[in-house]
Amino acid sequence: MERRKILVTGMSGQIGGILRRSLGERYDFSGIDRRGLDGVDVRVADLADLDAITPVFEGIDTVVHLGADPSPRASWESVLDNNIVATRNVYEAARIAGVERIIFASSNHAVGYYPMKDEPYKSVYDGRLNEVRQPIPPLTADHLRPDSYYGVSKAFGESLGSYYHDAFGISVICVRIGWVMTPDDPSFHPAALSLWLSHRDTASLFERCIEAPPSVGFAIVHGMSNNRLRIWESETTAQIIGFEPEDDSGVDWTERPGGPSFI
Amino acid sequence: MERRKILVTGMSGQIGGILRRSLGERYDFSGIDRRGLDGVDVRVADLADLDAITPVFEGIDTVVHLGADPSPRASWESVLDNNIVATRNVYEAARIAGVERIIFASSNHAVGYYPMKDEPYKSVYDGRLNEVRQPIPPLTADHLRPDSYYGVSKAFGESLGSYYHDAFGISVICVRIGWVMTPDDPSFHPAALSLWLSHRDTASLFERCIEAPPSVGFAIVHGMSNNRLRIWESETTAQIIGFEPEDDSGVDWTERPGGPSFI
Repeated sequence: MERRKILVTGMSGQIGGILRRSLGERYDFSGIDRRGLDGVDVRVADLADLDAITPVFEGIDTVVHLGADPSPRASWESVLDNNIVATRNVYEAARIAGVERIIFASSNHAVGYYPMKDEPYKSVYDGRLNEVRQPIPPLTADHLRPDSYYGVSKAFGESLGSYYHDAFGISVICVRIGWVMTPDDPSFHPAALSLWLSHRDTASLFERCIEAPPSVGFAIVHGMSNNRLRIWESETTAQIIGFEPEDDSGVDWTERPGGPSFI
Repeated sequence: MERRKILVTGMSGQIGGILRRSLGERYDFSGIDRRGLDGVDVRVADLADLDAITPVFEGIDTVVHLGADPSPRASWESVLDNNIVATRNVYEAARIAGVERIIFASSNHAVGYYPMKDEPYKSVYDGRLNEVRQPIPPLTADHLRPDSYYGVSKAFGESLGSYYHDAFGISVICVRIGWVMTPDDPSFHPAALSLWLSHRDTASLFERCIEAPPSVGFAIVHGMSNNRLRIWESETTAQIIGFEPEDDSGVDWTERPGGPSFI
């Protein structure tokens, strides 16, 4: 059987590397990136240039759109070019080429102000677990509260995906990704324990998105490991794409001075 | 008492005219527009040019952001400049100037695919009222299903408003406006009967948004008259801003050949 042709934007990034290492035998990967990569078919191009990227989509079955300015501190100018214009161009090039499915890397930052401002989420992120009432009402696809221009651009990519699905029939799965980190160890902060998506679960998550049946037309799903401190819904995600994360970050952490801030 | 200073973007448009005629004595209106207007303090500028518009926001209490490419058929290029970049610039200029509140003209097109694709909304738009089950589950602020680049840009303006409120404390009220039309008569099509926002209700709606107390930090509300064929929620809107529309378009219409299409 011929392997499915998967085009990954931002192939040189952390998640691109995990996909190549874990799923490189199963799928026929190619990429678009700002820079070339040894041993991988990568077209060097700027996603903000529609004409430059359109030919790369020919013959592709599924697009995994990871390419973006990944910083929640990114300026408006960078987000506009690298996340907003780029994402529209990826959808448009996929439409022109007749791609079946786009998997869009959305982010927890699309709802990032909930855990920064509202209880019980804030107590989870701050590690005040004795103040957390159980069960935590999970954040769902209907929630939207971006914490940055970056988060706004991820909400934009979701609603653009909804439009492209309804208007053109292309399947779009948006994944609100937690936090993929290297080294693959979230024990340095309670928020990281909540957000963690392990490398193993990252590979499984994208495989599930690629393999989900064509009946999955448009969906917003969550990409976090099975963490005990998780604050996002997981049941709907499991129903829609069959993603069942294996890893659990637990609840024990070590505060490090000058640790991460989340926006 | 000094009149509140209201800056209206897109002042030369239909809604700008209604606001000036109905509320011109109550408020001190100024505007930004692509073209000048007799008898009104209008700065001619392109909203896509942040430096050009920033000085106009000095001393303003409330911004009513109507300026946009208003066509659901607008190209991506036009939407990008006139709706996305322009809206970010309006929020940013308002933030710099310390404006208290932005009223953002969102649109029913942010959820426009529901009545084009899903029952019972579709039957309402198509005028097959015998197929409509009662009561109609109303579309709410949590629904999102844009029908065009234009609709995506309105969803963008809403999520950007949520971010600006959380990050900078500015009050943002997003109004999903139905259909303000001239002449002020929706009897030509069932969808128009559903979407109608009469001129009188338009003035009352924006007055309510301007007068809503500072405790209204961020909200998405609906701007339709009290139409019997209405498919959007109204109770939450009434609770948040006190908008109680007076007009009702009823259910009787005359089909006209080549009537409107909604995207």
